[in-house]
Amino acid sequence: MRNIKFTITYDGTNYKGWQRQKDSPTVQAEVEAAVAKVFGKHHHVWGASRTDAGVHARAQIAHIKIKTSIPVENIKKAINTILPEDIGVVDAQDMPLDFHAQFQAKSKLYCYHILNSRDRDPFTCRYAWRVPYKLNVSLMKEEAAFLVGEHDFKSFQASDKRERSSVREIFSINIEKKKTALVVEIQGSGFLYNMVRNVVGTLVEIGRGHFSSGSMCEVLYARDRTKAGPTAPAKGLFLMDVVY
Amino acid sequence: MRNIKFTITYDGTNYKGWQRQKDSPTVQAEVEAAVAKVFGKHHHVWGASRTDAGVHARAQIAHIKIKTSIPVENIKKAINTILPEDIGVVDAQDMPLDFHAQFQAKSKLYCYHILNSRDRDPFTCRYAWRVPYKLNVSLMKEEAAFLVGEHDFKSFQASDKRERSSVREIFSINIEKKKTALVVEIQGSGFLYNMVRNVVGTLVEIGRGHFSSGSMCEVLYARDRTKAGPTAPAKGLFLMDVVY
Repeated sequence: MRNIKFTITYDGTNYKGWQRQKDSPTVQAEVEAAVAKVFGKHHHVWGASRTDAGVHARAQIAHIKIKTSIPVENIKKAINTILPEDIGVVDAQDMPLDFHAQFQAKSKLYCYHILNSRDRDPFTCRYAWRVPYKLNVSLMKEEAAFLVGEHDFKSFQASDKRERSSVREIFSINIEKKKTALVVEIQGSGFLYNMVRNVVGTLVEIGRGHFSSGSMCEVLYARDRTKAGPTAPAKGLFLMDVVY
Repeated sequence: MRNIKFTITYDGTNYKGWQRQKDSPTVQAEVEAAVAKVFGKHHHVWGASRTDAGVHARAQIAHIKIKTSIPVENIKKAINTILPEDIGVVDAQDMPLDFHAQFQAKSKLYCYHILNSRDRDPFTCRYAWRVPYKLNVSLMKEEAAFLVGEHDFKSFQASDKRERSSVREIFSINIEKKKTALVVEIQGSGFLYNMVRNVVGTLVEIGRGHFSSGSMCEVLYARDRTKAGPTAPAKGLFLMDVVY
């Protein structure tokens, strides 16, 4: 028995997220179908993060337990020839048998892309949220800093989802603006359902001047979803890395 | 009567090219539909270049003759709110009444994007031709130089198309490689149907070592489509600029 770790990249536009669903195309289903075609047998492909419908990945991590003597490099090539062009295996590695892509993840890095422009760009419209308003980026940076650390992020949790605990730790938030491209980079121990998109939606409200200075702190401590900003669209979100 | 020039950008993936067709989505049809919605009347939108199915544009130029007193900036905004997100009007300007987007074009600039990598990239798969073979870029540059100047480009003309003359002038060809991105930039007086894609297909055959040194000259003078390389896929081609 071997345990193989895959680093997978995908354009999530055409998928209902990572996790297999009945009657909907998902990334997990495509990868499992490719693995089944290569090995003639179904294997569960276990992903680190259940990315949502429309969310992209530069590096989703997944593992499979499998009996085979094929070298990893050849497994990677064989799976890639079957996968559709919008999903790719970037790397494949043999791991110790106790490695688990989801349960052993220590932190995850997400990037959220905003096109801050009144002009549309057809080439980024699948990969960024276009915000046509002037944004106060330095205020956004100041307010984002309140979120770093261990907190109850209930205000940023999707209202219809109830994870056992809404306490998470954010290690860092960086906001970079280059011309019209604004990127919010968030690293944390783990994230609640929709948490990154709700944080970004709130930061954009702050940048537009809809929330006053110091309001991120108030929103956080309110532990009330209705106090935060709207959910930013899925298409701007990228899973960038998972650290073990 | 006014004559308004539009600079239009589009992701051509979902369109059967620029030119209006019966029962197929085209960029011209989308722009004409948006203009009709804004002005309550059909106007012919005349484009500089009939880009092919799947070809993109950073700057397609088009013009309309119209009676209206609305300022150009507002016309641009109004059309953009109606157009789908993969088409955008970048600029609108009033022009003298004798300006014609197609007939007065002095030169056109195209870029062709190649992803020269064994690894797929879901985020460029709509916008570049992935060539997984090692390419001799300096040989490609040397051979490309033979094409500069006024020539009969019959060897690079789609075999099922017969323009009145297959003589065209190429002003420059530049090939730049940055990491895995290879970009072929071609400026010319005008191009035959599929000419840029046939030139790129031939350059890639040269880069792979399938054609020997000096063969571009032989292919050009043969005036025979079967001597050139295959047609590169549409998705790597971008209309970048039209000069008047």
